[in-house]
Amino acid sequence: MEKNRLEAFSDGVLAIIITIMVLELKLPHVVVHASHSAKLADLESLFPVFLSYVLSFVYVGIYWNNHHHMFHCTKQVAGCILWANLHLLFWLSLFPFTTSWMGENDFASTPTAVYGFVLLMAALAYLLLQRTIMAHQGSGSLLARAVGKDWKGKLSAVGYLVAIPLAFVSPWISGALYVAVALWWLIPDCRIERLVNREPE
Amino acid sequence: MEKNRLEAFSDGVLAIIITIMVLELKLPHVVVHASHSAKLADLESLFPVFLSYVLSFVYVGIYWNNHHHMFHCTKQVAGCILWANLHLLFWLSLFPFTTSWMGENDFASTPTAVYGFVLLMAALAYLLLQRTIMAHQGSGSLLARAVGKDWKGKLSAVGYLVAIPLAFVSPWISGALYVAVALWWLIPDCRIERLVNREPE
Amino acid sequence: MEKNRLEAFSDGVLAIIITIMVLELKLPHVVVHASHSAKLADLESLFPVFLSYVLSFVYVGIYWNNHHHMFHCTKQVAGCILWANLHLLFWLSLFPFTTSWMGENDFASTPTAVYGFVLLMAALAYLLLQRTIMAHQGSGSLLARAVGKDWKGKLSAVGYLVAIPLAFVSPWISGALYVAVALWWLIPDCRIERLVNREPE
Amino acid sequence: MEKNRLEAFSDGVLAIIITIMVLELKLPHVVVHASHSAKLADLESLFPVFLSYVLSFVYVGIYWNNHHHMFHCTKQVAGCILWANLHLLFWLSLFPFTTSWMGENDFASTPTAVYGFVLLMAALAYLLLQRTIMAHQGSGSLLARAVGKDWKGKLSAVGYLVAIPLAFVSPWISGALYVAVALWWLIPDCRIERLVNREPE
Repeated sequence: MEKNRLEAFSDGVLAIIITIMVLELKLPHVVVHASHSAKLADLESLFPVFLSYVLSFVYVGIYWNNHHHMFHCTKQVAGCILWANLHLLFWLSLFPFTTSWMGENDFASTPTAVYGFVLLMAALAYLLLQRTIMAHQGSGSLLARAVGKDWKGKLSAVGYLVAIPLAFVSPWISGALYVAVALWWLIPDCRIERLVNREPE
Repeated sequence: MEKNRLEAFSDGVLAIIITIMVLELKLPHVVVHASHSAKLADLESLFPVFLSYVLSFVYVGIYWNNHHHMFHCTKQVAGCILWANLHLLFWLSLFPFTTSWMGENDFASTPTAVYGFVLLMAALAYLLLQRTIMAHQGSGSLLARAVGKDWKGKLSAVGYLVAIPLAFVSPWISGALYVAVALWWLIPDCRIERLVNREPE
Repeated sequence: MEKNRLEAFSDGVLAIIITIMVLELKLPHVVVHASHSAKLADLESLFPVFLSYVLSFVYVGIYWNNHHHMFHCTKQVAGCILWANLHLLFWLSLFPFTTSWMGENDFASTPTAVYGFVLLMAALAYLLLQRTIMAHQGSGSLLARAVGKDWKGKLSAVGYLVAIPLAFVSPWISGALYVAVALWWLIPDCRIERLVNREPE
Repeated sequence: MEKNRLEAFSDGVLAIIITIMVLELKLPHVVVHASHSAKLADLESLFPVFLSYVLSFVYVGIYWNNHHHMFHCTKQVAGCILWANLHLLFWLSLFPFTTSWMGENDFASTPTAVYGFVLLMAALAYLLLQRTIMAHQGSGSLLARAVGKDWKGKLSAVGYLVAIPLAFVSPWISGALYVAVALWWLIPDCRIERLVNREPE
């Protein structure tokens, strides 16, 4: 029952994060009202903001999916798990800021690097949460076996780490790395799913 | 249990989408503070924004109702269903933007067409989600029988498709089409409801 | 199970409505940054906005409490109940707009009357929802007996109806009426609570 | 079942409060668009806003954790508990305002004192809610034994009370006090946790 509330609270925070990012998609009111001739060309200026919105939407979706699978394998929730979860939510809550900063500056070097930094911190917070739950459950637990060494999680963190300095060489390389990692995760975390299905409830 | 969390997350996102649209209902502060004589006439300028808000509120309500019925007929949730659901939520999350753009430009041609485009993409995303669930459940499933050919869903998509180019002839024709399709859906999806009631749990 | 989702969605919308109203509590940034000497006097200008926030917070709280009690006495949810519920949520969703309009204009006549109009429409939507549920359950139902003639709900609506024209005589009379009705409802809806407790589950 | 809805509504409100605070993390758009050279130095101006965001995030996290534990020990919910809970949510809903006011004014005396005042009122509202639940459950209840005299809650309130006037001596003393109390609470409320675990369900 404790688990339900942690899930509900996390769902709420993730739902809000994924939705308020869209508030950045805004056309300047003054211009619009002056000419009263909204054209498709107006949307062009929003394109980088839209692109960064899509990327962050997918990332929050990935975190929600993985969070879902991770807690599906978790029976009990202790105080330290609550805080490790809040720590993850903290870094995810910075997504709307870094997303709009990167988008509004047409993927300039610094905002693109800062975007990667927050991705990295969220990835580390996720690994920390996973480790906290496994420490609490014992090494023979369902989650421990399903996750294994979690190379995917660790390699993603390395990807972000590499992308941060590369943003000062060319932000497009970093952007390509963020997209590549996201696409890699779009394939649902089948390892856990398969194990859970084999396991009797 | 997995299903519960997908429903809870979707409910959260839909609840936020339906509510943040109201943030666009705003009177310019400067004018208001200068004269300190708020009049009913001030609301007139908000009328198109209000109208587009009502239309989008009804549309999000329709999606919530249909989502509710669809998952009522769904027993199990797989990874691909989670992503098809997030894909639907993505297009719905663009409603606040297209709603305010259309409203603030007094239903100009381009914003009205873009509004229809997002309606169309959401309708296609819904059909895709439905098809994904049915593929997962098998053709003899409760949902497959309840939905049938889903002419209503497909004809709605055709309606939006027709409305998009017509917005450049007259936005009022497109607006009338959007209202007509919405009114058609206001009648709750009784096909499913009736079948579910006949079926023993 | 259907009922749970309706409750969850309504809870989400009400939680967002009650919370986004606080976003109106804003001090003009420019002034603040220019002088860098934020003083308590700055808060004075926010006092009417704060007052209207408190009033609306209490009203949304009342609606949440009553909604909670009403659906506690409701076993099954049909399509028309979903729409009657969305209709109530629509009028409640306008609270943030009318609240900030009234507060920012120091309780001027028109915004105070419009605030009352939305209160009236929400009250009528609540009565309609109640009637829809009772029609669905039959006259001998738990809700029907608990609610009775619902003089309290009907008299509240009359109170708002009277307050609207009085706002043009003096907004303070209308404000006093809104406060009086709110205080009357702060006493929890014990009629239902008592009956439910007597009734075996 | 009543309890579930109170928890869900509180989770929703807390999730929104904790997330909308991030909307204050905003770089002035005009400057950004003019120069198109977003630099790390731009983030410096946001540092006090970020600091106050982190502090408030931790505080809302603490309240969510404690709320979670408190209602874990609560079996039944009465009308007066609903209102005591809404009263707590009211003061917590003011966090986004005081957080951004304090951050945007670089921890000036008055905003720092007002921040402490809202912390104090939230702490008193929490103690009141605890007392209301215990009065309803009887003195031998699980919550009453777990909470005991609640020196931690009372001393925190004293800490805020002391910090308010000290903000006019030096806001840094008050800030240090707010941080100290928050760190003290970061240690999860193990008293309740331990007792609950010993107790058969």
